[in-house]
Amino acid sequence: MSGISNITKSKFKIAIIGLGYVGLPLLHLSSKHFNVVGYDKDTYRVNSLNNLYDQNKQIKIKDLKDLKNKKIISSNENIIRNCNIYIITVPTPIDSRNQPDLKLVKNALKTILKFLKDGDLIILESTVYPGATLELSKKIIEKNSHFKINKNYYLGYSPERINPGDNKNNLNNVTKVISASNKKSLKIVKSFYSKFIKNLYVAESIEIAESSKIIENIQRDVNIALINELTLLFKKMDLPMKKILDASKTKWNFLNFQPGLVGGHCIGIDPYYLAYQAKRIGAKSNLILAGRKINNLMINKVYLDISNCINKIKLTNKANILFLGLTFKENCPDFRNSKNIALFELLKKKYKNIFAHDPYVDQNLKIKYKNNLTYRLDNFKKYDFIILAVKHNQYKNLQKKFGQTSVYDMKYFYKNSTFYL
Amino acid sequence: MSGISNITKSKFKIAIIGLGYVGLPLLHLSSKHFNVVGYDKDTYRVNSLNNLYDQNKQIKIKDLKDLKNKKIISSNENIIRNCNIYIITVPTPIDSRNQPDLKLVKNALKTILKFLKDGDLIILESTVYPGATLELSKKIIEKNSHFKINKNYYLGYSPERINPGDNKNNLNNVTKVISASNKKSLKIVKSFYSKFIKNLYVAESIEIAESSKIIENIQRDVNIALINELTLLFKKMDLPMKKILDASKTKWNFLNFQPGLVGGHCIGIDPYYLAYQAKRIGAKSNLILAGRKINNLMINKVYLDISNCINKIKLTNKANILFLGLTFKENCPDFRNSKNIALFELLKKKYKNIFAHDPYVDQNLKIKYKNNLTYRLDNFKKYDFIILAVKHNQYKNLQKKFGQTSVYDMKYFYKNSTFYL
Repeated sequence: MSGISNITKSKFKIAIIGLGYVGLPLLHLSSKHFNVVGYDKDTYRVNSLNNLYDQNKQIKIKDLKDLKNKKIISSNENIIRNCNIYIITVPTPIDSRNQPDLKLVKNALKTILKFLKDGDLIILESTVYPGATLELSKKIIEKNSHFKINKNYYLGYSPERINPGDNKNNLNNVTKVISASNKKSLKIVKSFYSKFIKNLYVAESIEIAESSKIIENIQRDVNIALINELTLLFKKMDLPMKKILDASKTKWNFLNFQPGLVGGHCIGIDPYYLAYQAKRIGAKSNLILAGRKINNLMINKVYLDISNCINKIKLTNKANILFLGLTFKENCPDFRNSKNIALFELLKKKYKNIFAHDPYVDQNLKIKYKNNLTYRLDNFKKYDFIILAVKHNQYKNLQKKFGQTSVYDMKYFYKNSTFYL
Repeated sequence: MSGISNITKSKFKIAIIGLGYVGLPLLHLSSKHFNVVGYDKDTYRVNSLNNLYDQNKQIKIKDLKDLKNKKIISSNENIIRNCNIYIITVPTPIDSRNQPDLKLVKNALKTILKFLKDGDLIILESTVYPGATLELSKKIIEKNSHFKINKNYYLGYSPERINPGDNKNNLNNVTKVISASNKKSLKIVKSFYSKFIKNLYVAESIEIAESSKIIENIQRDVNIALINELTLLFKKMDLPMKKILDASKTKWNFLNFQPGLVGGHCIGIDPYYLAYQAKRIGAKSNLILAGRKINNLMINKVYLDISNCINKIKLTNKANILFLGLTFKENCPDFRNSKNIALFELLKKKYKNIFAHDPYVDQNLKIKYKNNLTYRLDNFKKYDFIILAVKHNQYKNLQKKFGQTSVYDMKYFYKNSTFYL
C-alpha cells in the first residue's frame, strides 16, 4: 500500500480546509514544521488574509506576511492537490429547526474526494455528534469512490479547543485530544500534531473523541441554563442573584457561572447535535434540551427586565440609552449568532434613542446600525441609561465616568451597578 | 430592651437544638468558648453521645468525654432554659410526595418558644427555601406569643456546610455564611461564630443566605444529572462514558463530575425545597426538576445495566455476588436515604446469593441483612461478580486481590474494571 502510512514525516503534505477560528491558527503553527496549504472557499476571507488582515485577530501581521510569502492560502481548491493529509476545520452550525447542518463538512469531503489518493488521511476537527465522522465519510467518500476506510484511506478526529478571545488557552499550550481509524493512522495523526502541540491525549476511538468534545460545551450550556433558571426564579422573589452567587461562591466547590445570553457558534449549537443523534437512536436528552429552552428564553426575559428597570426610574421610550457590547463574547471580534445583537434589535424597536458601542464593530454593522452606533466612550452624561452587555476590557474602568446615569449590568462587571441581571 | 442585644459575649448562653451531623460539631467547637448546651429529643442519640459513642464518627472520644463531663447534652428540653441564643440544626427532609417536611424545624421553634425571653436570638442552620426562616418563625413564634421580630426577638440564618466523610473541609476552616434580621442581631451572630470560625461571609439578608445555600446543592444535583443523562445516552450508543470523561477532563475548564446514584439528605432533597417555593410563587423550575427526574431514574437504570453485564458473562441468578458499599457516600457511616441500599435490595430480589459489605455497617443493617452480609474482604475467588458501589478507602487496593472475578465499577474507582457504569 502506498500513501501516508509509508512516507516519512518530511513528506507530509497537509491541506487545511477552512481558515476560520480553527483553521488559521492551525495553518500558522503547522506551517513552521510542515509543508502545508490552507484552502477556504470564501474568497473574501482568503483575500483579507492575503492582504494581511485577520478579522478574528488571532494571528499577528508578521505571521500573516509569512503565510502570504509562502503562497499557501488560496480559495482555489487546486491548492490541495498532492496533499496526503487533509484537515477539515469548517463550522458545523444548525439550521432554522435546530437540526445539525453538516453541509460544510460534506462539501469539504467532496472537495477532498476530488484529490484523494490511496493511503491518504482525512482528519476532522469540527464538532459533530458521535459517529458523524465515520458516517459522513462513508456517505461522501466511500459511496462515490473505490475508497474503503483503513484500506485505501484513513480517518482521524481531533476536536478543536479554540476559545475565541482567550489569550491564555492557545492551540499550542492546551491538551489536544486525538484519535484515528486504526493504529497506523493514529501514529500519523500523533506525529503531525506532536510537532507543535505539547500535550496530546489519545482517545481510544474516533467516537470517544467526538463524544468528549461535544459534552464539554453541553456541560457549559446546562450550567449557564441552571443559573439562568435560578436568576428568573429569584427575580420573581425579588432576590438579587448577584448577591446570592457572591455568597454561594464562598463554598469551596461552588461553580462560578453567571446568568446570561448564550450565543456564538459552540455552546448554544452543540447540544442540538447530540440531541439529534440521541433522537435517532431512541435515547433521551431531556435535561440537555431543557437547558437549551431556558437559554433561548433568556433574551426575552432580559429584554423585559431591562424595560422594567427603565420604567422603574421613570424613563420613557425616548430615553437616551447606551448599549455596550455587541459581540457574542468579550474581547473577541465575533458577531456570529450574537444574542447581544438580537437584544439590541429588540430594544431598538422600543427605544429609538438607543446607541450601541463595540470596539470590534465591523463594516456590516456600521452600515446596518449607522444611526444607532457610537464610537465614543465619553460624555456619558448625555445618556439616561447604560446597558453593559459584554465585558470587553475597554469597558473595565468606565464606571467612574458614568456619573449619575443608571446602569443595567448584564455581566456583573461593575461594583454597585444600579441594576443587575 | 433587655436580652441578647445588651449583654456582653461572656454572658451568651447558647442552646443547640439537634445534635446530628450539624449540631454536634457546632456544640463541640463552640463549647470551648461559650456557655453552650445541646438538646436533642432523640434519647437514643443523646445516650449514645453521653456514652462516648458518636455514630457519625465526627468527634473524638476525648472531646465527647469533655462534653459529657460538662453535662451539656440532654434530651430534656429544660436544658435550654435561660439561654439567649438558640441555634436550630435539625434535618429538613421531604415527605413521600417530595414536598418539604418542616416538622422538625417547627417542633424546634415550638420548644424554643417555651423558653424564649425578650431580646433572645434564634439562628437557623438547616437548609430551607428562601423565605422559610421568617415564614416559620412568624407562624410558630409570633402567632402564638407577643414576640415581634426585631422588637422582642431576633432571627439569624447561617447555612451549615458540613460535608460528611470529608476531612479537609471542616466547620472551622471553611467560610461560613451568616445573616440576621437586623444590624443589631447580625453583630451578635458575628461575634458568636467568629470566635471559632476564621472566615465568615456576611449575606445582606436572611433570604440571600437561604438562597445561597440551596443553590449550592442544586448545582451539584443538576451536574450529576447531566452526566447521568449522557451516560445513559452513550450506553445506548455502546460508548464508554468513563473513557469519554477521561478525554473531556483534559480540557482546562471541564467539570469533573461522574455518573451515579444521588442519595443522602442534601443533594437529592434540596432541589425539591426550591421547586416547592417556585411553584408557590408561580415561577418555573423545569431544569431543576428534570435533573431530579434523571437522578431518580438512575437506580433502575443501574440495576438493569448490572443485570445485563451479569447476563453478558453468562452468569445465572444463582451467581455469587459481592456488593461493596452500602452508605450513601464514601468514608462516611451514613445510611440514611442511601440509594446503594435500595440498589442492593433490588439486586437481592433477583440474586439470592448476593452479599453486601460495608465497613460502617450498623446494628440495624446487621439484623436486616443477616444472611446477606459479609465482614470479610478476602477470598474473592468465591464470588462470580463484584459490584463496587461506594469508594470507601478500605476498598482502594482490593483490585489486585479480585483475581479473575468480573467487576462492575459504579464509581470509576479501579483501573481496567470489567464493566463501568
